[in-house]
Amino acid sequence: MTEPAFRAEDLTQFATALFERAGLDRDKAQTMAELLVEADLMGHTTHGLALAGGYLDELDSGSMTKDGAPEVIADTGVAATWDGRRLPGVWLTAQAVDLAAARAQVHGLAAVAIRRAHHIACLAAFLPRATEKGLVVQIASSDPSAASVAPFGGTRAVFTPDPIAFGFPTDGDPVLIDISASITTNGMSNRLLAEGRTFEHPWLLTADGTPTHDPAVFRTDPPGTILPTGGLDHGHKGYGMALMIEALTQGLPGFGRADPPEGWGASVWVQVIDPARFAGHAAFVRQMAWTVAACRASPPRPGLGAVRLPGENAMVKRRAALADGLRLYPGVMRGLAGWADKLGVTVPAAIG
Amino acid sequence: MTEPAFRAEDLTQFATALFERAGLDRDKAQTMAELLVEADLMGHTTHGLALAGGYLDELDSGSMTKDGAPEVIADTGVAATWDGRRLPGVWLTAQAVDLAAARAQVHGLAAVAIRRAHHIACLAAFLPRATEKGLVVQIASSDPSAASVAPFGGTRAVFTPDPIAFGFPTDGDPVLIDISASITTNGMSNRLLAEGRTFEHPWLLTADGTPTHDPAVFRTDPPGTILPTGGLDHGHKGYGMALMIEALTQGLPGFGRADPPEGWGASVWVQVIDPARFAGHAAFVRQMAWTVAACRASPPRPGLGAVRLPGENAMVKRRAALADGLRLYPGVMRGLAGWADKLGVTVPAAIG
Repeated sequence: MTEPAFRAEDLTQFATALFERAGLDRDKAQTMAELLVEADLMGHTTHGLALAGGYLDELDSGSMTKDGAPEVIADTGVAATWDGRRLPGVWLTAQAVDLAAARAQVHGLAAVAIRRAHHIACLAAFLPRATEKGLVVQIASSDPSAASVAPFGGTRAVFTPDPIAFGFPTDGDPVLIDISASITTNGMSNRLLAEGRTFEHPWLLTADGTPTHDPAVFRTDPPGTILPTGGLDHGHKGYGMALMIEALTQGLPGFGRADPPEGWGASVWVQVIDPARFAGHAAFVRQMAWTVAACRASPPRPGLGAVRLPGENAMVKRRAALADGLRLYPGVMRGLAGWADKLGVTVPAAIG
Repeated sequence: MTEPAFRAEDLTQFATALFERAGLDRDKAQTMAELLVEADLMGHTTHGLALAGGYLDELDSGSMTKDGAPEVIADTGVAATWDGRRLPGVWLTAQAVDLAAARAQVHGLAAVAIRRAHHIACLAAFLPRATEKGLVVQIASSDPSAASVAPFGGTRAVFTPDPIAFGFPTDGDPVLIDISASITTNGMSNRLLAEGRTFEHPWLLTADGTPTHDPAVFRTDPPGTILPTGGLDHGHKGYGMALMIEALTQGLPGFGRADPPEGWGASVWVQVIDPARFAGHAAFVRQMAWTVAACRASPPRPGLGAVRLPGENAMVKRRAALADGLRLYPGVMRGLAGWADKLGVTVPAAIG
């Protein structure tokens, strides 16, 4: 059975209304809704409206803060450190990207390190708000209250998957990179586990260190782990990335695994760079357009289609969903309909 | 036959003398010598004095510039862009780390993007000059005149291995990460090729896209390629890293693959962050010391020793070589002895 299609703006309005009824002000509710729908538009279905129910639970329980602004711990005018007070991480991250973008346009680069944000959802969804201004943007996050990835050679988890996203403008669509220090994510593991499925490759380790396809290893005690990027033969690369990302996201804002866990949340690093303050916007685009074209021209391996750029597929999906309607991942709308009923919000009409 | 051991400072003095005789001023010669010996001390033997002969060739041919300073293309006081004029990349990178460190201590973060540097050798060797000051440092480089790594799913090379190094202080030794966007490096491929050896894993592709252990694929026409980090099943991660690193190192300084190749060289990104301008040095060290300890405490997979931190092995080797003498990789001293003869420099005496 195909899921019904909705107009993206109807879904945004719907999610905005849910978050407002749950106690967020208009600005926070709308920013969250827009960025979750953006993730679904890009095809990142584990990190779009699939998260809204969890966020509504957290607002309900008080674990996600509803009111106010982040506390500024330090600020040089180039480097800001915020305590997010467990405010919605999606809203905090959007604020951080916008602040760092404005500052990068003056200084060439600027950063915001955020501790105690709530969950920030899909990193790639934030990138276009900087690349559309001709800027280069990097976002990394970790969740110090959780661990599912072991250091290379180890069997006990220390890290979260520790995503890092990086976007830059070209002469066409932006390049939108969204990778992580581990081979796969918690979101994908949970989804496969819920659906009784397994991974295509042995990307996990059992608690005693045996490679496995089966996400059921997260239900053992002690639990299994996700392998770092590079896996068994070159996982020191993912391990290095994880340490880098945890230094940026927890070391710099000064809150992390050394502190008592506070529940589902995020530690965040946002950095924006303005090519216009280096050798110039045109010089940047000239180089990257060349490299993008060279990637597309690289003959594919036997049996594969043309080489794609990171974000290319997302942009294709996004344009199609904006034109023809967005079909959410199976079950997501059913879950939100329950919240709509509870909060007295009207579910949007399907368009197909 | 074991290679003879030398005192590290004798090797530094020796290499300094070679570079001075080849036409570099004292400061450039000594900085190059110190950092090449540092790479050997850390065990990065493909990127230490093994490179000195190649550098002397380049000074001899005029492909490495001997005199002067980089040209400043742009500078905001936080973000600097240099044209390296093909000056020694090792010296340029050391200058960039020192400048960015001083500026980061004021602004929290600072960066230098360098185009047209000559080769920069071992990225990890530069990290301690920032971590010793309590700073966090990131260095990335690429060589737009060469390509050996294909985009994920492709078979024609677009990228260099594109290393990225990241160092940060802890309560003990610093963590010194030195990884790359490809599974292995040109240096290692060339060494195995010269020695008639093959890789332990199928980390390369033939020109038609078949995985192989054999570096001889670089001698075919068209040549084979090195797989991106993550290999055949999750190489989109290394591909994303490569695009990020080429944007930082070529896009920002505005010189790269879109320009006619100038020969062996490097495009460089140096960024330094001062935790003292975020939540504080003590807060940073508290978090990272916890995480480092948690990594060490992760029980190893069957058959493996205790989990190590990136840079730990290098620091152990470094201390041993400083105490007992440094044994260079086989053949390196023999090559330099030829240069010593030619340039009238005395070869140091072995100490064991």
